Amino acid sequence: MNHSTAHQASVSPPPQLLVVGTGAVGGYYGAQLAKAGATVSTVHRSDYAVIRERGIQIDGLQGSSLFRPAHVLQQVEIQEQAPDYILVALKVLEEIDTASIIRPAVGKKTVILLLQNGIETEQRIADAFPDNEILSGLAFVCLSRTAPGRIAHSCYGHLAIGRYPRGESQAAHQLAALFEQSGTACVVSDDIGLERWKKLVWNAAFNPLSVLSRATTAEILANPAASHLVEQVMREVCRIAEAAGYRLPDGIVEKNLAATRKMKPYKTSMLLDYLSGRSMEVEAILGNVVRAADRCGIAAPHLQSLYGALSLLARPASTAENQ
Amino acid sequence: MNHSTAHQASVSPPPQLLVVGTGAVGGYYGAQLAKAGATVSTVHRSDYAVIRERGIQIDGLQGSSLFRPAHVLQQVEIQEQAPDYILVALKVLEEIDTASIIRPAVGKKTVILLLQNGIETEQRIADAFPDNEILSGLAFVCLSRTAPGRIAHSCYGHLAIGRYPRGESQAAHQLAALFEQSGTACVVSDDIGLERWKKLVWNAAFNPLSVLSRATTAEILANPAASHLVEQVMREVCRIAEAAGYRLPDGIVEKNLAATRKMKPYKTSMLLDYLSGRSMEVEAILGNVVRAADRCGIAAPHLQSLYGALSLLARPASTAENQ
Repeated sequence: MNHSTAHQASVSPPPQLLVVGTGAVGGYYGAQLAKAGATVSTVHRSDYAVIRERGIQIDGLQGSSLFRPAHVLQQVEIQEQAPDYILVALKVLEEIDTASIIRPAVGKKTVILLLQNGIETEQRIADAFPDNEILSGLAFVCLSRTAPGRIAHSCYGHLAIGRYPRGESQAAHQLAALFEQSGTACVVSDDIGLERWKKLVWNAAFNPLSVLSRATTAEILANPAASHLVEQVMREVCRIAEAAGYRLPDGIVEKNLAATRKMKPYKTSMLLDYLSGRSMEVEAILGNVVRAADRCGIAAPHLQSLYGALSLLARPASTAENQ
Repeated sequence: MNHSTAHQASVSPPPQLLVVGTGAVGGYYGAQLAKAGATVSTVHRSDYAVIRERGIQIDGLQGSSLFRPAHVLQQVEIQEQAPDYILVALKVLEEIDTASIIRPAVGKKTVILLLQNGIETEQRIADAFPDNEILSGLAFVCLSRTAPGRIAHSCYGHLAIGRYPRGESQAAHQLAALFEQSGTACVVSDDIGLERWKKLVWNAAFNPLSVLSRATTAEILANPAASHLVEQVMREVCRIAEAAGYRLPDGIVEKNLAATRKMKPYKTSMLLDYLSGRSMEVEAILGNVVRAADRCGIAAPHLQSLYGALSLLARPASTAENQ
């Protein structure tokens, strides 16, 4: 069934795709889908002028390439023909009303793929578009925006996508086939929530701590008290996930720690956001798991501590440094 | 007995005092003791030249005053006559070997007063000078060094001093009488360890969190998650203190929170240290309480979380911000 879907995709008219939130993740995966034959347009709040003129340069592991979107837009507009897919790679922030942003382009049959971090972030979009299929997706990859219209792709990775909240999806298989054609490994999951919790094990530990202490992954693991904290946070996430209905694989904590020890010293995406003065996804990555713990009656003192410090650091008018 | 001691102090030859570590705390209390008639010399690692020339200016609540020490020294030297008291106001840091620093001036009868933050910091000095009386003391006051040789005294406060590890002390009463004469309230405690734990309730919560989030006390209390964290940390300190043999007064957490809500927005001393690039007393204020919890078998997940993040932030070669 997967094979016939992939085959079908290559002979049907190319799918129309709109990428909204075209930072590093949106730009890179948009480029991959275009490489596989999709007609990909992009929307840019910042970098619009540069990308309209010059396209998006992707500096990858095997050299650079240029991605020229079919259309470069400054905001989501009503399309002549509604796109088959909208790939949303906006950050999950209180101040970003994703549903309102994408609404002009959402047609009756448009499938919305949310390629975003965190847990329990999809329901708002599902509520806003009750008749559209929602896919939820995760990118396991090292990508960063190094300049306007320029993305560095510094390690291979893979995608996991699946129907929200769960279940089989023809559309997910079609997208996965396109990604695979472009050289991006893409797993289709019928329980994408589980994948989100699995990714959160790493993110909830390393992202907040990296910001609070301005540290790379290697610096975190080299400090005994910090390394101990990482492990405790990961174990809390596993307990909360289980109580929320997602039993994570045995040994996931140890595997995450071992894999991180093998990585080059790495600045988390949240640390890069912080150092650049950009908003951090505190609620998607940390607040939502603390609230899930409360809801499920699971103690989460380590996560609560990180959340207390990080949500305070992320307060809108942080003035202490300037007083 | 107290009264006769105080009276005796005023007719005996004035006590000789050496203040070592003459930042805001050492400078201010040295000045107070000089005001009460003691002969006070001071040792300055930094600010030596300025203070030798101009003395120490104290900008207080009722105007400014000038303190001219009897002798201004750049390092502790062997004294012709060993001082009656050495007041140590050095920070408690791994890299500061207090015993070696003060050793040249410690005579057979010299009483050593450690006016420092944190808990379980005195034993090293007691071990180094087994025949000398050790007093331990705490300053509850708002003091800051605003420029070389200049101290701002922005709120009244009091001192608590007492014999280490516990018990009655004639010397403590003599010093207290001098402080009282100068207008500084000074309580003599025969269980100074209890006073240290009481002060730690506030310090272990507000100092680390203020640094991790660059926040004033008011900003901390205005953030629900941070405010919740402060309370949890305070309750952990109480449980650890009790297990370590120091039962803290009922309602101490609520009293600390209420008092802090009434304060003007305040930057903790640790935050001021951090913002100025000075070393922070992470081990005295946080590491020692986490180790006490381990030793006593008390769970301290909130303290451990703050300790993990803060000891990582305080690592010697913090490079993340510059990379």
